[in-house]
Amino acid sequence: MNEFELIKTVTHGAPAQKDGLVRGVGDDCAVISGNETKDFLITTDALFEDVHFKREWISPRTLGRKALSVNISDIAAMGGKPLFYLVTIGIPKAFPLKEVEEIFEGMANSAFVHRTALIGGDTCSSANGLLISITVIGDIDRGKSIYRSGAKIGDSVYVTGILGHAALGLACLEKGIRSLEVREFIRKHDDPTPRVAIGQWLMSSTCVSSMIDISDGLVSDLNHIAEASNVEIKIFANQIPKVEEFAKAANRCNKDALTLALTGGEDYELAFTVSSYKKDLFEKMMKVVAPTFGHAVTKIGEVTAGNGVKIIDMHGANMHLTKGGYEHKF
Amino acid sequence: MNEFELIKTVTHGAPAQKDGLVRGVGDDCAVISGNETKDFLITTDALFEDVHFKREWISPRTLGRKALSVNISDIAAMGGKPLFYLVTIGIPKAFPLKEVEEIFEGMANSAFVHRTALIGGDTCSSANGLLISITVIGDIDRGKSIYRSGAKIGDSVYVTGILGHAALGLACLEKGIRSLEVREFIRKHDDPTPRVAIGQWLMSSTCVSSMIDISDGLVSDLNHIAEASNVEIKIFANQIPKVEEFAKAANRCNKDALTLALTGGEDYELAFTVSSYKKDLFEKMMKVVAPTFGHAVTKIGEVTAGNGVKIIDMHGANMHLTKGGYEHKF
Repeated sequence: MNEFELIKTVTHGAPAQKDGLVRGVGDDCAVISGNETKDFLITTDALFEDVHFKREWISPRTLGRKALSVNISDIAAMGGKPLFYLVTIGIPKAFPLKEVEEIFEGMANSAFVHRTALIGGDTCSSANGLLISITVIGDIDRGKSIYRSGAKIGDSVYVTGILGHAALGLACLEKGIRSLEVREFIRKHDDPTPRVAIGQWLMSSTCVSSMIDISDGLVSDLNHIAEASNVEIKIFANQIPKVEEFAKAANRCNKDALTLALTGGEDYELAFTVSSYKKDLFEKMMKVVAPTFGHAVTKIGEVTAGNGVKIIDMHGANMHLTKGGYEHKF
Repeated sequence: MNEFELIKTVTHGAPAQKDGLVRGVGDDCAVISGNETKDFLITTDALFEDVHFKREWISPRTLGRKALSVNISDIAAMGGKPLFYLVTIGIPKAFPLKEVEEIFEGMANSAFVHRTALIGGDTCSSANGLLISITVIGDIDRGKSIYRSGAKIGDSVYVTGILGHAALGLACLEKGIRSLEVREFIRKHDDPTPRVAIGQWLMSSTCVSSMIDISDGLVSDLNHIAEASNVEIKIFANQIPKVEEFAKAANRCNKDALTLALTGGEDYELAFTVSSYKKDLFEKMMKVVAPTFGHAVTKIGEVTAGNGVKIIDMHGANMHLTKGGYEHKF
């Protein structure tokens, strides 16, 4: 049983409706009714030692920054603005206080960039390794949250940035490769940038019908959109954005660049669909605003009738992945 | 360095003010401005295997119930109403799925009692033991949150229920005593009841100047009120509520009943102060409503000038505790 099946199992029977609840389990954030102009977004995510990170591979400061950034990414994936965060940290015996401070400094650094304030939490000793569990609260214009369930047949599929770099960085860490050419991939793995600015812009553009952040891998996460929206998503392999150094470095790690881009986790880019009747408007607006974001926005596919995610090669044929997206297996 | 010093260290420099933030780090919950009539309360707390619980001592269902109840207790301690919860659970390899389901059933049970809905979370595999981290969101009439900082000289100090029972239950678990006479103490430790109903009533009574829930022990938690309010709190030892079986069972565990009541953690009762000029009104109201709560409400002390918590014996002399309240030591 994988993570998604498990969540379904344990939340089965959870109340679907409650006063003040706009959206419960099943999207990047839960949505709570705030006031006449705002909804609140809330999300929680944890990093466990030896599952999500190894202490010898990442500095405490970078770890802290990543722990907050990946939570903020869930707010970005709804089109929202992060406001506050709470931290539960479990600290092993004999863990240096200085490193605890550095973890919190790293979080404060991400918080400063994204104007997010620490408002609470819990510190405990841990008998079993370091762990950091964070809850982030954000807000968004009332009723404007972008869900996974809004994709419609005929919509176009886009991604921000470039995919697979974090997974390649992880592969380099695992293989002990630390050379200059791969530093950027390791940095992308260790220190992801949540796409908050473009997430908010996409929300305000009113062109976007569904959105998710890519934490488990493009195919795996687009599958959530396909399932929630009851559609099929076609991805054109030759439209996946790539950089030349990436294929070379992937080769050195005995990895296939396309497979990394399609299935590699932890990029924390945004994948989203644009309504068919707003595509031209969206493309025009993107031309104007894209340079301000500092990362690419690329059309990679389309929404069709059916279910699941299909990868289409340059000849129009279905490609079959030999393994699925990265999931936390039990 | 203990938990409280650590929290101070790492949150030093956290922004004290931000739009929409009513109260940040340092109380039972953070308070966020909601709308014209409501504020939101938010709190997070975790249970770690071999730190907060041992799997051989508690059933998965009871553990789940406790994990949610202790978080709801923080909402009660502000006078609020719990609404929603998010769960991050870290599951060791080979942990039975059935027990995961039972943990969530236990949470759902506490949630049902307190009308609280599961709205999100994160499930991960854990390399290092079971852990449950929960965030609870509640609401409260705007501006009516009861803080630790409101106690004034001349106020009276009260507690709900009876103290020390959970700590005695833990002592019994540690010593392997499971006889019928101690079952109720073990139950109190394993399955605390958050004081939500009286917490909300105390808020609406407008008589209460400060409040906290007793998670670390009466003296330790009243110290937070004393410090936040810049006052001294005097507790009269002979006014501490007690039951006869408790002293006997404490004896069997080589524990002093009074010390357990003063320093034992995890009772999740409420300690609060009543404004001096509303004391008579409060006592009159309590006589009417107390029977509906099903637990005692006892005056145990008063707020004076100074700092810290003093324990006064029947002769009016200061008592000195040989050890402080229960804290999670690093």
